[in-house]
Amino acid sequence: MPTISERGQIMPASPIRKLVPLAREAEQRGVEVIRLNIGQPDLPTPQEGLDALKKIDRKILEYSPSEGLLSLRNKLADYYHRFNIDVTADDIIVTTGGSEAVLFAFMACLDPGDEIIVPEPAYANYMAFAISAGAKIVTVPSTIDQGFALPPVADFEKLITPRTKGILICNPNNPTGYLYTQKEMNQIRDIVRKYDLFLFSDEVYREFTYTGAPYISAFHLPGIEDQVVLIDSVSKRYSECGIRIGALITKNAELKKNVMKFCQARLSPPLLGQIVAEASIDASSEYMLMTYNEYVERRKYLIDGLNRIPGCYSPIPMGAFYTVVSLPVDDADRFCEWCLREFEYEGATVFMAPASGFYMTPGMGRNEVRMAYVLKREDLARALKVLAAALKAYPGRTTE
Amino acid sequence: MPTISERGQIMPASPIRKLVPLAREAEQRGVEVIRLNIGQPDLPTPQEGLDALKKIDRKILEYSPSEGLLSLRNKLADYYHRFNIDVTADDIIVTTGGSEAVLFAFMACLDPGDEIIVPEPAYANYMAFAISAGAKIVTVPSTIDQGFALPPVADFEKLITPRTKGILICNPNNPTGYLYTQKEMNQIRDIVRKYDLFLFSDEVYREFTYTGAPYISAFHLPGIEDQVVLIDSVSKRYSECGIRIGALITKNAELKKNVMKFCQARLSPPLLGQIVAEASIDASSEYMLMTYNEYVERRKYLIDGLNRIPGCYSPIPMGAFYTVVSLPVDDADRFCEWCLREFEYEGATVFMAPASGFYMTPGMGRNEVRMAYVLKREDLARALKVLAAALKAYPGRTTE
Repeated sequence: MPTISERGQIMPASPIRKLVPLAREAEQRGVEVIRLNIGQPDLPTPQEGLDALKKIDRKILEYSPSEGLLSLRNKLADYYHRFNIDVTADDIIVTTGGSEAVLFAFMACLDPGDEIIVPEPAYANYMAFAISAGAKIVTVPSTIDQGFALPPVADFEKLITPRTKGILICNPNNPTGYLYTQKEMNQIRDIVRKYDLFLFSDEVYREFTYTGAPYISAFHLPGIEDQVVLIDSVSKRYSECGIRIGALITKNAELKKNVMKFCQARLSPPLLGQIVAEASIDASSEYMLMTYNEYVERRKYLIDGLNRIPGCYSPIPMGAFYTVVSLPVDDADRFCEWCLREFEYEGATVFMAPASGFYMTPGMGRNEVRMAYVLKREDLARALKVLAAALKAYPGRTTE
Repeated sequence: MPTISERGQIMPASPIRKLVPLAREAEQRGVEVIRLNIGQPDLPTPQEGLDALKKIDRKILEYSPSEGLLSLRNKLADYYHRFNIDVTADDIIVTTGGSEAVLFAFMACLDPGDEIIVPEPAYANYMAFAISAGAKIVTVPSTIDQGFALPPVADFEKLITPRTKGILICNPNNPTGYLYTQKEMNQIRDIVRKYDLFLFSDEVYREFTYTGAPYISAFHLPGIEDQVVLIDSVSKRYSECGIRIGALITKNAELKKNVMKFCQARLSPPLLGQIVAEASIDASSEYMLMTYNEYVERRKYLIDGLNRIPGCYSPIPMGAFYTVVSLPVDDADRFCEWCLREFEYEGATVFMAPASGFYMTPGMGRNEVRMAYVLKREDLARALKVLAAALKAYPGRTTE
């Protein structure tokens, strides 16, 4: 039998993947599984987007341009202007989800052996896309004790080698909910400029910032406009993860030409998703406010509740809809598995994502989990009860 | 400024891409451009697929499973059974178009430096996906004089090295319309078995075979079931290229596991496209017959017409909806460009794909073009008139 690729073999299987069948088995036993593990919002897609589907009167569902529909790119440009991001439709390439934007950014910027520096914990799939591109992710640790603030500039500089091609940030952050300050963003800009790097900036959670502190886009940083590769997606802000529409935004003409080769090879982003995304940008301010208020309330409710459980600690996330929580357990991988395999409280258990999947440094985040607050308040309330009970019952509980 | 990737730079820009702006300019001059260059059928998407969109009553357009909706995978399995392809839903992974199936097949089977052998001319984007994966495509030439039949087995064997990991075929073939015979498929199976290779088989045109000769799937070949990676797409058979739904089919459990890692990294194939694809599989036999009869008639009309133009020659394509035509010109790239830039006849010109984009060996196919017969008969009639006139007027015409 021919051997499969080493590339795929070294791709880490996220700890969540092992847990998915356990969650299914729990459900088959009649246990309700409260899912805090995945960023699939339970909020509705905007009616404008859903209506657009019913109004499609095309006879042929044909290819769209490789760079995406011009009407969508124009709408996106207007949308970014609301955030003082000064881009035109020409700077915007529509991708199949934010995922494809990350993959194409890496493919077009990095060659095998090239390195990018990423603060960890980080979205686990960045690693998968880097492996796809043959590139290496080098991590700078941020810690729960510091509230996951940007690590000191010196920590980045120590990691820079002749192969370093870029820095990747996610802002507001998945998984930590951290929102980089103006000062931190300026520090990133300075390194990017000093070492002539790309700045890959994943800003898909920009709608969700909660503290009054400003959201600073990578495109707000003067002097590095041609080095910024902005990653975006409509998935989270309009609760339409399934339509697979994202965007890669660059003002660098040469880079754009390179990215477009990868776009042309895959012919076209999804037509139907583009139609829905375009209509969703017209979502009413009531919709956006309702969504925002939901997350504000859920965040307060969840974080307050977590910090009241003995031995639990969560920093207050400033954005996105995730938080990383430290738990009084020996090993969060084991604890999450135990919750699904062996535990139930009043007929329910919780599915959490062990934070180990978000760290590249082995051993880091061993007692941490990521939770997404994309569930209704009553579900969060039960999740908190179940978690408190589980921590009492878990044999691997540590003293605080 | 940081440098862009070499990977992207070495990706060949297809000759069609240079021609697209010229076609636009011709249209701006008021010249009608008859497009024979792209496989975008003008036939309608099945009504079942279009109706499915209007019937969507979900409130949230959420992620689907990374391997695709089970209901679609079950329907696809039933569909393959009609062709005596013995697969189950478990063997089928839904991808974002056939494009993603090719990319993931390469990513999961090939490491940088690995080689696959492909008969040329071949679909140009295979090259792009190979470059994305860092793999090398090695070509065995097939020729118009032999009607693009499979090159002799000895030609394949000469190219096999320790890095050879697979053979890639497209059957029925894009761009040539060739349909591999049972004997040829057996020869491929023998090489695949003898040298322990993967057989990547792109069979997206299976519905379109015209000569009564049987369509032989790679899964019809006994003894190499675990080595076959079948690439499929609903794009062409249901005229729904824009929904971006394809499939990767493998019975090799270890390979499937590897492919799934790439699927999980990109989270989910497009939900809406899956809903349309699933409904389209229920397209009536009248629809399928109407489509088939259209292509039969167009094929006859176009090929007869081409072979009546002095100096033109097209083999009779046995399947798909393309043909490669040799023209009495010095250089088909130049001729195609000239048609768009300088020529018009009765207010129209033709847009053809120079065959050079389908050959990897420099210089091959220099006087050949690919034409897709995805247009109405009256458009094909005018295209033939325009082409005949263009060949008379073209300064680079060669003697026959």
